[in-house]
Amino acid sequence: MGEVPESHPRYASLMARKMLTDAAAAGMLADSALIAHGRGEAFDYLLGEETCEPARDSIAETAARLQSSEKCVISVNGNTVALAGSQLITCAAILNCPIEVNIYYRTPERMEALLSALHTQRQQAAEQYPELANEISNVDILGASPDGRIPNLDGPRANCHSDGILSADTILVPLEDGDRCEALIAMGKTVCVIDLNPLSRTARTATVTIVDELTRCVPILIELLMDDAGIHHPDWDNEKNLQDVINVMLRRFE
Amino acid sequence: MGEVPESHPRYASLMARKMLTDAAAAGMLADSALIAHGRGEAFDYLLGEETCEPARDSIAETAARLQSSEKCVISVNGNTVALAGSQLITCAAILNCPIEVNIYYRTPERMEALLSALHTQRQQAAEQYPELANEISNVDILGASPDGRIPNLDGPRANCHSDGILSADTILVPLEDGDRCEALIAMGKTVCVIDLNPLSRTARTATVTIVDELTRCVPILIELLMDDAGIHHPDWDNEKNLQDVINVMLRRFE
Repeated sequence: MGEVPESHPRYASLMARKMLTDAAAAGMLADSALIAHGRGEAFDYLLGEETCEPARDSIAETAARLQSSEKCVISVNGNTVALAGSQLITCAAILNCPIEVNIYYRTPERMEALLSALHTQRQQAAEQYPELANEISNVDILGASPDGRIPNLDGPRANCHSDGILSADTILVPLEDGDRCEALIAMGKTVCVIDLNPLSRTARTATVTIVDELTRCVPILIELLMDDAGIHHPDWDNEKNLQDVINVMLRRFE
Repeated sequence: MGEVPESHPRYASLMARKMLTDAAAAGMLADSALIAHGRGEAFDYLLGEETCEPARDSIAETAARLQSSEKCVISVNGNTVALAGSQLITCAAILNCPIEVNIYYRTPERMEALLSALHTQRQQAAEQYPELANEISNVDILGASPDGRIPNLDGPRANCHSDGILSADTILVPLEDGDRCEALIAMGKTVCVIDLNPLSRTARTATVTIVDELTRCVPILIELLMDDAGIHHPDWDNEKNLQDVINVMLRRFE
């Protein structure tokens, strides 16, 4: 893709692309992962590639839900590890919760590549946030030996850890698939997702949906979690939040 | 990606994905090609994955422009060859014009893979349309030894054939990059593009923009070219056509 100067107006977007194509070369991604990223890019284009006000609200609500949970977990797939693995480990450290790899097209090679990438990222995160180095080093990285299953979901994507996804009351899961989101909600869990498509089944099913680009919203989430994120709103209206985001996108068309 | 039954509601979309991941494995695509396809998918989702009325108008206008041209050419890149190479060779046969490979990230290996794929597709097209077998076998496949350059365009993507893009008055170019589209328009050519993003620079710069999915609109184009496509409209209002498409997408949001 060549060198891109930091001053390039689309620097962040081009860097995200590079992170993903590198991850694909490293065997971390399924065939369709780059296509999924491209779909996200199109919706981000409609957002003007910036975090909109309704997204700031859903990030704050997610921070509050995670902080006030009994037991939370951060669930990651290939694209998530490639784009924001180290940042999400930092979130997990602040929340004192595990991070769990759960992928749709599960193969031993991809799981190995992802777990290995997360171990490297955990070290990098500890260097980047020395004040949190201890907590970061203690973050559990789950996914290697799942001992539970998400009910009503077929295939290997249902596999999960009993001390991770299975027992958590609140899950932060960027870039989720619609089926699994529905299955987690059916289990009575609070599911906070990050999804650029406000019309997707995941976006419409989740408890709280952050419609924003991953590498842009996770730093905001970290900042909120570092402070006290405040109390969550039991009457959070996710549908209204999605409509507000759609209105932002509509203005782009008009 | 597993087997997908033809009855699957998203069969066409999943098949397109498979064609592209196969092409990537065969070395035909640049790193960013799958991401670009995903962007297109998002806009196609907003079209309801069907050819809208304004797209039918721009397909008809494109057919008429190609038929009434003095000298036309079909310019293809990696994604185009992967998704619709054989169909576009059929268009070229009906129009008695060459097909020319012109790619953004030009390497000898990719050019070789694409030219070889087109030669195979030319044979397949001749078998699929026996009544056109002779014309199809005679379609010139250009791109191997460019002897001209598109003015005001840097890098290897400016390379082209003097008996292809350089001397054509009308170019059909699916999935074009914005810079090259502008450069071709600046040369005074009629440029007909196929682009799912009605807001892209390519879509807004071209003479006629077909906002539709490639494998869906090219068969319609072939059918029109088989008949007499009628005369073109010198006062074609591309901007209005794009606005009509945008209105179709807006209805999806509402």
